[in-house]
Amino acid sequence: MDTRTCELCLTTGGPLILEDDKCRVIYDENADYPGFCRVIWREHIAEMSDLSRQERDHLMSLVWATESALRELMRPHKINLASFGNVVPHLHWHVIPRFVDDKHYPEPIWGTVQRKGVPRIAPSVETLCFAIQERLI
Amino acid sequence: MDTRTCELCLTTGGPLILEDDKCRVIYDENADYPGFCRVIWREHIAEMSDLSRQERDHLMSLVWATESALRELMRPHKINLASFGNVVPHLHWHVIPRFVDDKHYPEPIWGTVQRKGVPRIAPSVETLCFAIQERLI
Repeated sequence: MDTRTCELCLTTGGPLILEDDKCRVIYDENADYPGFCRVIWREHIAEMSDLSRQERDHLMSLVWATESALRELMRPHKINLASFGNVVPHLHWHVIPRFVDDKHYPEPIWGTVQRKGVPRIAPSVETLCFAIQERLI
Repeated sequence: MDTRTCELCLTTGGPLILEDDKCRVIYDENADYPGFCRVIWREHIAEMSDLSRQERDHLMSLVWATESALRELMRPHKINLASFGNVVPHLHWHVIPRFVDDKHYPEPIWGTVQRKGVPRIAPSVETLCFAIQERLI
């Protein structure tokens, strides 16, 4: 897979929450996991250790700000963080608010279904964008 | 769950690769995933955003060094990184070398089994310890 076929090179990947010249935060449109965000590095790079220290710090500052904003706005039982890229080897972080009554808890969302899952409302793009930006200052 | 019942407070969690006053790196003894490491924060803290910026940077410097060392020593197709803590809410990072012929590829290791998986040998604790330390200097 290269930049001509990579979906994270060709598309935003979901509703855009915020972006800068290095990365963007989007909503993952997973109906079972409202508030599920992805923080995506702009360039088509596979691994964190392919970035410079400054680039890693920049990407992770967005991951931490997204985690912190989601905790305040949604009060989840736990935050789950993951970077896999097995299917799409383009650096992106999953930031997932988890609740004890969600579809897979306490399993990772890629694990065995535990129940139907209780519906929740995610913050609006504008509300989440503002809360993340506040934490980047 | 508190420090009296948390397995990561009460036990090392697996063969110790290296430790400092803030965190430790251990081998996760998962027979399907040789080289699978966990980087564990010493204190019983649940979320990355509960740490100070300096503490986060310190923990992640060990995650990046472990990723880089495993890439050199095992030449995996991909590295997977994750911090969940749904079962054990004590900060720990999974650093997992993934291969196209492993048990779940391209699924996360918590997903659907894809095949039996090809056996591999992990680096010795001493070899991995040395390679991580080289990257922390």
